[in-house]
Amino acid sequence: MTDPRASAIQYANDHSKDFLDALQEFVRIPSISADASYKGDIARAADWVAARLRALGMRNVNIYPTGGHPVVYGEDLEAGGKAPTILVYGHYDVQPPDPLEKWESPPFDPTLRGENLHARGASDMKGQVIAALAALESIMCTGSLPINVKVLIEGEEEVGSPSLEQFIPEHNDLLTCDAVLNPDAGMIAADIPSITYGLRGLAYFELRIFGPGQDLHSGTFGGAIHNPAQVLCELVAAMHDDAGRVTLPGFYDRVRPLDAEERGELARMPTDEDFFLRASGAPALWGEAGYTAAERVGARPTLEVNGLVSGYTGMGAKTVLPAYAMAKISTRLVPDQQSNEVREQLRRFLEAHVPKTVRWELDDLLGGAASISDRHSPAVQSLVEAMEAVWGKRPVFVREGGSVPVVAQFQRHLGVDSVNTGFGLLDDGAHSPNEKLHLPTFYRGIQALIHFFFNLSVK
Amino acid sequence: MTDPRASAIQYANDHSKDFLDALQEFVRIPSISADASYKGDIARAADWVAARLRALGMRNVNIYPTGGHPVVYGEDLEAGGKAPTILVYGHYDVQPPDPLEKWESPPFDPTLRGENLHARGASDMKGQVIAALAALESIMCTGSLPINVKVLIEGEEEVGSPSLEQFIPEHNDLLTCDAVLNPDAGMIAADIPSITYGLRGLAYFELRIFGPGQDLHSGTFGGAIHNPAQVLCELVAAMHDDAGRVTLPGFYDRVRPLDAEERGELARMPTDEDFFLRASGAPALWGEAGYTAAERVGARPTLEVNGLVSGYTGMGAKTVLPAYAMAKISTRLVPDQQSNEVREQLRRFLEAHVPKTVRWELDDLLGGAASISDRHSPAVQSLVEAMEAVWGKRPVFVREGGSVPVVAQFQRHLGVDSVNTGFGLLDDGAHSPNEKLHLPTFYRGIQALIHFFFNLSVK
Repeated sequence: MTDPRASAIQYANDHSKDFLDALQEFVRIPSISADASYKGDIARAADWVAARLRALGMRNVNIYPTGGHPVVYGEDLEAGGKAPTILVYGHYDVQPPDPLEKWESPPFDPTLRGENLHARGASDMKGQVIAALAALESIMCTGSLPINVKVLIEGEEEVGSPSLEQFIPEHNDLLTCDAVLNPDAGMIAADIPSITYGLRGLAYFELRIFGPGQDLHSGTFGGAIHNPAQVLCELVAAMHDDAGRVTLPGFYDRVRPLDAEERGELARMPTDEDFFLRASGAPALWGEAGYTAAERVGARPTLEVNGLVSGYTGMGAKTVLPAYAMAKISTRLVPDQQSNEVREQLRRFLEAHVPKTVRWELDDLLGGAASISDRHSPAVQSLVEAMEAVWGKRPVFVREGGSVPVVAQFQRHLGVDSVNTGFGLLDDGAHSPNEKLHLPTFYRGIQALIHFFFNLSVK
Repeated sequence: MTDPRASAIQYANDHSKDFLDALQEFVRIPSISADASYKGDIARAADWVAARLRALGMRNVNIYPTGGHPVVYGEDLEAGGKAPTILVYGHYDVQPPDPLEKWESPPFDPTLRGENLHARGASDMKGQVIAALAALESIMCTGSLPINVKVLIEGEEEVGSPSLEQFIPEHNDLLTCDAVLNPDAGMIAADIPSITYGLRGLAYFELRIFGPGQDLHSGTFGGAIHNPAQVLCELVAAMHDDAGRVTLPGFYDRVRPLDAEERGELARMPTDEDFFLRASGAPALWGEAGYTAAERVGARPTLEVNGLVSGYTGMGAKTVLPAYAMAKISTRLVPDQQSNEVREQLRRFLEAHVPKTVRWELDDLLGGAASISDRHSPAVQSLVEAMEAVWGKRPVFVREGGSVPVVAQFQRHLGVDSVNTGFGLLDDGAHSPNEKLHLPTFYRGIQALIHFFFNLSVK
């Protein structure tokens, strides 16, 4: 009798072209969650995922409507009550493709260049969803799953997973599990398999500054009216001090100090200063005094300007004194900061700093808590061994700068940790033009997940 | 024999509908000089003006190509060598209409609402060009011009009149005159006829800040890379001190101090703080400490942000660390500041303040000198009396915050002062959405110019 694990691996090797075809079909759907005009494509993407789960032989496949975009669910519980249950999480939505003119090929027309497939969502995270489904298919088509599997694919990750906040507690029985597999965390480089045990939280705002009743002639009024663009710049500039620390009142009060042991562990990651310089293309690094780059992005909270706009931004000159200026500003949070507390800190900062010469409005766009997972759980150990089997080396443990609010939601509502991994690389350009997926890593990822599911069954 | 002045006034009264029709035809041409894609409309507008001059019976009508947009010229020198010669200046180009969504009616579809005609260029300055041509027509169709008239209508005023800088000295003989009439300066209110004797100069820049090689994920890199949008905000914030003074090194070195006599005169203008509050709609005034609002906009130099853009500015949230940030920044200058010196001051400021974490580029977009005209010349006195005849009150003398670079160019190359006036009102929204022209003032302006041409002949 053949080894079921070897048969599944063989199946995956034989079907790599089919998996790539499926991915190309999936990324052609512009399922942009941030923009309401893509609602039809969001629905198409949800239908596509549900059809795929059904084709796999999953049971109880359903598209659940929510207040926002639908959640797709399916399960295979044939392994029975004694086997562990793993919830595979993913999202079918993608970031907006702007700026469009920077793309070398159209964002929703997947294009192979060298070892990479270029398309919006190829890496974040349609490629990861396909990898997980391909691993399940490889096992299910050559035998049966050794563990119980539930699959939950949502459509709002890129806008902060707001509907899951309700959906998870409302479907507690449906979702109950021993651990979550979340392949949205990516890896540092093609030869460095990674497991992310810490994720930063997020609080994202839109700040609007209003000055005169309408755009004015800058010659006629310039110098007598406070320019909202200037006020906005003054406010943004005041949000950091000279040491690169965020000046919102109380911002660092709840931040857990880094102890020497964890700093030592983070220092073993291959993400040194040279790495960040190369990966970013920036002329020099920057950040909070007293911390390394890896600590700054992983273990320290930060504040970023994600967008700015005011007045005339077209070609040439327009001598306008703008009526209005807007900034999108987000903070990345670490345990135990709370996004609602950060919102109040920003509000207090604005109350103290906005001059009487303008009016202001602040909108909450996203919020999500930071999270830290146990590095010694059976699920994590199953993945460590799976990655060793494929890459021939132990994965590194990462405290990641990005935010996956759903990890904190699963922790809070289901009481389970997530195993955060993935096969998107740091230089894939996840939220940038020319996003790509490194295909050799994608195929290795499918094999690693096959090992992971088999390893779990004997832990 | 009838009084020729009275006949001309009568003609103007009888033909007001025709003048309005001509204006509506003229503003339908979207002759936007800042945007290269409107080059065809620029050419149409130049043709339209030339045809109009020919229909008036002007001689030597020509469309002169330049390195930029063409200059239209025509003349009537029948009054002969003993009569004075006046050069009537105007421009047929207009500002871009952005933001389009703020217009209540389409910018290039002239719309009457109450006493106003709404259209881009209605006030700045197609309405003023039509008023000057209407005054000439009224005299020429009822008799002959009592003075020599040259007409020069350019197509680059809204982008700083760069081609005139060459065109004027190259056509010195053609343009030689005793004074320039420039009706681009506007008036304070419908019942306050105004003559502008001081105009601010302009130096307009585009500043670009480059950080990482491409837009990055703000979670993965945020905190380790200097955000170009934040750097831009820090630079802009540093361009003013707490007293509202511009901090470019040496910026105030050449500024002529205001003496008590001129401050007293400026204090007599009806533009008090209440006026600026009402006209701007801003919640409160602002500006350089130690000066009134009228002094700040007329007699003091200032620095404005005209536009800002970076990162994601669409709906919702995108967690991007932008690769790039841009600001359009302009300074308004007073005698004896020089725009090229201000550019060097800004460059020195940037060399001192831009951190090594980003790269920067600075483009010169516009430049023009400040100017001051003699308030006691025959041309100015002719206009004072003309306005008294129409409005029944003496005009006020204004130091205006706006910039008309061509006034300094005529002074430098032809050695003549400009009589700066016009019938656009301060609340016309010259560079704003819903720009309008107050028609009763437009018709009074035509009458005032008829008087002006007759008054000049006897000075």
